Amino acid sequence: MAILQTADNGVARHWNQPALPSSAGSLFQLLRDGSPRTRAELAAVTGLARSTISARVDDLLASSLVTPTGEAASTGGRPPATFAFNPGARIVVAVDLGVSHARVAVTDLASHVLAEETFDRSIADGPVAVLGAVTKTAVRLVEKVGRPLTDLAGVGIGLPGPVEYETGRPTSPPVMPGWDRFDVPGHLRETFPVPILVDNDVNIMALGEHEAVYRDVEDMILVKIASGIGAGIISDGQLQRGAQGAAGDLGHIAVPDGNSTPCTCGNVGCLEAVASGPAVAGRLREEGYTVETNSQLVELVRSGDRGAVQAVRQAGRDIGSVLAGCVNMLNPSVIVIGGVVAAVGEHLLAGIRESVYSRSLPLATQHLRIVSSRTEGRAGILGASALVTQHALSAEGVNALTDATA
Amino acid sequence: MAILQTADNGVARHWNQPALPSSAGSLFQLLRDGSPRTRAELAAVTGLARSTISARVDDLLASSLVTPTGEAASTGGRPPATFAFNPGARIVVAVDLGVSHARVAVTDLASHVLAEETFDRSIADGPVAVLGAVTKTAVRLVEKVGRPLTDLAGVGIGLPGPVEYETGRPTSPPVMPGWDRFDVPGHLRETFPVPILVDNDVNIMALGEHEAVYRDVEDMILVKIASGIGAGIISDGQLQRGAQGAAGDLGHIAVPDGNSTPCTCGNVGCLEAVASGPAVAGRLREEGYTVETNSQLVELVRSGDRGAVQAVRQAGRDIGSVLAGCVNMLNPSVIVIGGVVAAVGEHLLAGIRESVYSRSLPLATQHLRIVSSRTEGRAGILGASALVTQHALSAEGVNALTDATA
Repeated sequence: MAILQTADNGVARHWNQPALPSSAGSLFQLLRDGSPRTRAELAAVTGLARSTISARVDDLLASSLVTPTGEAASTGGRPPATFAFNPGARIVVAVDLGVSHARVAVTDLASHVLAEETFDRSIADGPVAVLGAVTKTAVRLVEKVGRPLTDLAGVGIGLPGPVEYETGRPTSPPVMPGWDRFDVPGHLRETFPVPILVDNDVNIMALGEHEAVYRDVEDMILVKIASGIGAGIISDGQLQRGAQGAAGDLGHIAVPDGNSTPCTCGNVGCLEAVASGPAVAGRLREEGYTVETNSQLVELVRSGDRGAVQAVRQAGRDIGSVLAGCVNMLNPSVIVIGGVVAAVGEHLLAGIRESVYSRSLPLATQHLRIVSSRTEGRAGILGASALVTQHALSAEGVNALTDATA
Repeated sequence: MAILQTADNGVARHWNQPALPSSAGSLFQLLRDGSPRTRAELAAVTGLARSTISARVDDLLASSLVTPTGEAASTGGRPPATFAFNPGARIVVAVDLGVSHARVAVTDLASHVLAEETFDRSIADGPVAVLGAVTKTAVRLVEKVGRPLTDLAGVGIGLPGPVEYETGRPTSPPVMPGWDRFDVPGHLRETFPVPILVDNDVNIMALGEHEAVYRDVEDMILVKIASGIGAGIISDGQLQRGAQGAAGDLGHIAVPDGNSTPCTCGNVGCLEAVASGPAVAGRLREEGYTVETNSQLVELVRSGDRGAVQAVRQAGRDIGSVLAGCVNMLNPSVIVIGGVVAAVGEHLLAGIRESVYSRSLPLATQHLRIVSSRTEGRAGILGASALVTQHALSAEGVNALTDATA
């Protein structure tokens, strides 16, 4: 299978490089927008010889990445055939792993979810057990949608810890015992001999929300508030991972009020130690509440309990006071608040807005929107799928797919 | 002059878009790396017809952007001619405007400075007076290097305030009375009918330092410490400007120690109010020192005065405590400290390092270098030049230049 040769995450670094015009891939980039085009139009735009165009179009048709869409208006003689991108040509396995749950989906190349399953599973069970369960579910879902595994363009997977994106290996993840430096792509490739793309869970949430809702927004921050607090950063339209894949670590920035709450990281006054779900629940317990989990906290706030509402509003202010610095540094136009604790609703958002608008400069906040996630818990899945489609539909990825068919 | 048609900053947004293969520009992208290539090699790599290649190469030769570099080894018959990029083909005017000074240079397309002049000029004199002085100097420098104005590829200019990059207009700049929304490109184009690229002074410093010293570094922050404090951000190899061109505003992030020093921005506890040159000098005056300007402060610290050294070290700690949050968010591999106050040397750097390494997570700091600027005050000029060359040498820019010659 020629596609095996491309099962190297390294190539994913080069999405933004201009394609060399000799590939079927660059022809595909012209068709990817969905507009039907004729062979003559493709020749005119690319400057490639008609014979070259015909050979490339034949490759794309054989791979089904492109399908005939009908005929253009004729200027006399037989009307020329038109072609366009066919998102159903391939499928994608998208996986979102949390600390205690897993979500697996099969999507098409436009990130439409075809089948989906969620189950409880502790990440602390280690990579072999967890990835084994994920693989079994994924194979079952692919069967369920009635597609052969050879239709698979790739697997995208988000992990709840820092990931070295080039190799797909977790790096010193604090809540993932047994996962440090584990070869996730290598392990999954035993079942799925396709490109495997691995990233941090908050990064894929940012990517998913961006692709699904804010595609025209160039600068966005997604904040996940759950048992931890983290952020995914889109700058200039691109997900930013930083030098070691550790970008977006909002949870261990010091809250600028000089507080000294000890944090699990060894420092004091970290945002996570003050405003995460467990931190807020802990403070409420000190006041006599019986609240253990994030979902109990959400329920309590939604029931309108005054003490819980106040605690969540204060958590919002603390998150906002740290986000204000991020707004000054990154000047985003949208901040999306997601994660299970975000389900408490407007009280949290109000606290966040209060601090951000009082602490950031007017130029950076005049057009800033601070909003709740609109992907209903699916941001991770959508982002994992987008990781794969961005890779598979790049010029390089398309050449690999057409080579595999040829 | 055909080049007038491209004097639109809007096109600069599109540097990263893949070139359509029909242009002389995309051929030039292959030659830009400096390696000599033959027509046959260019045809093989691009898949373009030999006749197309010959026409495009002729355009590039006519524009002098590409020059013959000799002959390749022959496989029999007449040896084929080779071609490569010629950075001396065009010149660039690079301008770095500070609050009280101006620096103007003429460079080639590889950002080598051919002539340079620095003079005192208050930015508060307003755009017409300041840009008039800049224009006069630039015209004189172009004459000095013996080149006609028609050789000019563009003008790059940095301003000490936020700039809307797409239009080149300053937006609510706090220290630039009379400049708000002034059409800087339109004004300069009366003398220089070429693309005019305008950006914030710290952004061009980051770009200049990156191009000159850290070209292989994907994630970098440059911090300017002078009368104000600001940062320029390179993420994934690209300068990040944010939604309103306001990214990198480090100076108005709250120092996370709960301090309440009032700031000119109307808030309290901003980094700039605590650790800028004037803030440190002000504290020293309270202790009985006679120190007014940034250069007097630098001199005092360099003389080894203990109180001044301590004050600068504390300023470094405060800067580091805010930078620690930026390190967690952006995970850079290099932080460059520049600006006139950086000339105090190691004491400032030591304070910054102390805070960053104590407050950021190990994964983000294990490979992090915090260093002084290595461009000796020229970062702004080099960055302004790089703004223009990146634009002029893009596929679009090259097509404009070859059209102008044709």
